[in-house]
Amino acid sequence: MNRRDLLKAGLVIGAASGLARAQGGMTPFLPKARNLIVMVYDGFSWEDFAIARAYAQRVLGRKLTLERLFGQGAFGQIHTNSLTSYVTESSAAGNAFSCGVKTVNGGLAVHADGTKLLPIFAAAKEAGKAVGLVTTTTVTHATPASFVVSNPDRNAEEAIAEQYLAFGAEVYLGGGDRFFSAERRSDKKDLYALFREKGYGVVRTLEELQAERSNRLLGIFSSSHVPYEVDRRFQGVKVPSLKEMTEAALKRLPTYRQGFVLQVEAGRIDHANHLNDPAATLWDVLAADEALELLMGFVDRYPDTLLIVVSDHATGVGALYGAGRSYLESSLGIDLLKDQKASLEFMLARLGQNPDAAQVKEAFRAMKGVALKDEEAAMVVEAIAKKAYRPDGVRYGVQPANTLSWAMVQREAARPDRPNIGWSSGQHTASPVMLALYGAGVGRGVRLGLLDNTDVFTIMSQALGLRYQNPVMTEEEALEVLAKRPGAEWVHPKETLAV
Amino acid sequence: MNRRDLLKAGLVIGAASGLARAQGGMTPFLPKARNLIVMVYDGFSWEDFAIARAYAQRVLGRKLTLERLFGQGAFGQIHTNSLTSYVTESSAAGNAFSCGVKTVNGGLAVHADGTKLLPIFAAAKEAGKAVGLVTTTTVTHATPASFVVSNPDRNAEEAIAEQYLAFGAEVYLGGGDRFFSAERRSDKKDLYALFREKGYGVVRTLEELQAERSNRLLGIFSSSHVPYEVDRRFQGVKVPSLKEMTEAALKRLPTYRQGFVLQVEAGRIDHANHLNDPAATLWDVLAADEALELLMGFVDRYPDTLLIVVSDHATGVGALYGAGRSYLESSLGIDLLKDQKASLEFMLARLGQNPDAAQVKEAFRAMKGVALKDEEAAMVVEAIAKKAYRPDGVRYGVQPANTLSWAMVQREAARPDRPNIGWSSGQHTASPVMLALYGAGVGRGVRLGLLDNTDVFTIMSQALGLRYQNPVMTEEEALEVLAKRPGAEWVHPKETLAV
Repeated sequence: MNRRDLLKAGLVIGAASGLARAQGGMTPFLPKARNLIVMVYDGFSWEDFAIARAYAQRVLGRKLTLERLFGQGAFGQIHTNSLTSYVTESSAAGNAFSCGVKTVNGGLAVHADGTKLLPIFAAAKEAGKAVGLVTTTTVTHATPASFVVSNPDRNAEEAIAEQYLAFGAEVYLGGGDRFFSAERRSDKKDLYALFREKGYGVVRTLEELQAERSNRLLGIFSSSHVPYEVDRRFQGVKVPSLKEMTEAALKRLPTYRQGFVLQVEAGRIDHANHLNDPAATLWDVLAADEALELLMGFVDRYPDTLLIVVSDHATGVGALYGAGRSYLESSLGIDLLKDQKASLEFMLARLGQNPDAAQVKEAFRAMKGVALKDEEAAMVVEAIAKKAYRPDGVRYGVQPANTLSWAMVQREAARPDRPNIGWSSGQHTASPVMLALYGAGVGRGVRLGLLDNTDVFTIMSQALGLRYQNPVMTEEEALEVLAKRPGAEWVHPKETLAV
Repeated sequence: MNRRDLLKAGLVIGAASGLARAQGGMTPFLPKARNLIVMVYDGFSWEDFAIARAYAQRVLGRKLTLERLFGQGAFGQIHTNSLTSYVTESSAAGNAFSCGVKTVNGGLAVHADGTKLLPIFAAAKEAGKAVGLVTTTTVTHATPASFVVSNPDRNAEEAIAEQYLAFGAEVYLGGGDRFFSAERRSDKKDLYALFREKGYGVVRTLEELQAERSNRLLGIFSSSHVPYEVDRRFQGVKVPSLKEMTEAALKRLPTYRQGFVLQVEAGRIDHANHLNDPAATLWDVLAADEALELLMGFVDRYPDTLLIVVSDHATGVGALYGAGRSYLESSLGIDLLKDQKASLEFMLARLGQNPDAAQVKEAFRAMKGVALKDEEAAMVVEAIAKKAYRPDGVRYGVQPANTLSWAMVQREAARPDRPNIGWSSGQHTASPVMLALYGAGVGRGVRLGLLDNTDVFTIMSQALGLRYQNPVMTEEEALEVLAKRPGAEWVHPKETLAV
């Protein structure tokens, strides 16, 4: 079945898709909206929310825009499990949103047996909508890619860049020069030139982004993922913020006659949590909050727009934990975050392959506000040079970063002098995550409850008036396919470091 | 101001209490209900929910009643911070529910300066309602106690037992013989005799509980906290389940002419999470689910009852984390939980003060389904005998249990043979937690959003038609009082082990 046939099939939503599964809530019935904006907080847990809320309140003296959204919009949660795993990764989570069906972890808009799925932004484009993708990861990363293209391998980002060229969205903004530049691609193709030939303005810096006037836009601002907000803000790293990228998209997309669909992803909350990095997590959540404020303001001006704000899964669940007698010293962790001025990623890049203990101590003092003890500095030296990782156990699998994080934890109960924030792992977890709606049709009476991640598709397709049903695969069918795959060794996730 | 004056003051709710703070949601306007049941999941996070949901679905082949509640009732979340700390403990959380105001961690229905507060069940009693408290902790523990009595020290459980006698609730069921028996109380008072004199049937076993016919009931089933469900179910420990205690309360309370208020607490989800014990956490959540099913059935038969289901804070955030390539092996942790047949508490009691490595290995094999390696068994021997705790750091402060938990974590990525569940700490955390409503006045249109824990009081007082405002203390005032308190050394929390 090709795309048009799928669209024509036009199954009524409900019986076979989200509603049947979502027994913990109800998908709301919303009117058609001209524009649809989906903002994804990748790897964002309720503990991340609590820490950012506390920091905003206590240090910045303001409320999170996200909290305002929960009050003014509709508020709920979604289950995140993929077809065969209680812990999803971002592609299966993205597919649930974009295609409305559960898939096996690993592929984009595709089932494990190769059956292609039609993602919602592709259907919207055929219906005449302009399309935009904005992210802090590589622009070709799983969450944005799953909304527009089908590929059995989420890591085939060079190929996905070419699929983007063929797809022809109006706006692509994010990181990933290594998948676009002739010098760095394995096939030496110059994707930038090919995008220019198709009428795109191609920009590589904030200044170029803000000066560019063309309506179609490819902006690639870093080699791999866009550096963390904490490094942009305090270390002078020159890249656009998520808000600045979103602004550029919102200048262009509303000019299209039939409306637009836009995904904005705060993609590196996930990475910071993989690395167990408190400051990188916090500041990427705060950067997302600024972009969210811009988006809510846009919806207020263009009320024919539906804004969906959603997390795809939690990662690591870094939590502010109780400290001191009766937990009375617990706010310390919030106050000490003020002294954290760089990400672990930035610190690792500065320290290089073979730092000595003095360099390690100075880096932690200057960038994390923590005076490491000798044995802690030795732990970091060993982790970087000799790959002697602490603590042991699979759950701290994102190394050497998890060891750097471990080196700076609180040791003494009586004298808490480090942020009391700890991670349960360096991996994704199984918990439900946030879903909120704002804008077109979202009145006071809209109630969500605990839905399934596939219900996000139901909401989007209903708002766009694009009712179709992608092929469903059962868990049993998927397990049969997986059983026939050649075994592959487990490898530690590496893609979370922008190296 | 005495209690009656407070009641007479009858301030209209809203301006000074929950609504002003709850900018992430709306407290619903509910009609008056005859009966009010508050079920508290103590220390219950969204990760606990996800694990229990997965176990119910995958191993038990059923849906959680809690998930049905989210679909059929109203669904939201609450902030949990206390007056001066982003991490609450159970007394300040209980006060927020029962008194509608933020307090400092540590006291029951009282401000840090000694100002007494009127808890909602005390107000309900004066208005003629029968009162019941059912819990798996000591019955005098913070969460139930904060609903009925005022005491500056939540740990003064001998005194609280006497306050219960004076208060005269109709049903008290839980643990805590050491606070009632003449032999074990420091003042040698026989509280059981005094309760009998006041007309209570006093029961100490499941058989006595089920045979007892008196309408007023004191049931104390264990020395300290009631043993965990996992030990009751698989180790032959003889105590009533939470459902059986709840059944006994529901036999009596509806016979009172003016209706009743009842708190049912699944109190040891919190303790199991403090100890980082996956099986104890899981089974206490499942036991709560059975009690919840009973409560929802009661509400269906007596629709003039409002049921509030709420968590007071998250503890430890034990999370099922992604395992294997593309996280495809993540369901393993759910399957392996089947082999866990005892709590760490039970195991520690069996191992005694000085076990050898062979005994440790046999205990983990038989009770946790885990074959410890020599170095892991040595870690446990050291933790118990020499207090050499692993891993280091304040967040693993509940020892030696946290070390026992650590000893059985997954070590090898390529061969995941242990449950992939990890804790971010052994302490409470800052995240928002669940709130759900069911029954009287809770129609399909009731929308909660993200409220404050003090809004639970607003909901209860409105449902009971008992509108009053407890004195408010500001954070600044509280910090002044705290600054004058003598410093006290931080001690590791010990009360979570029922020894």
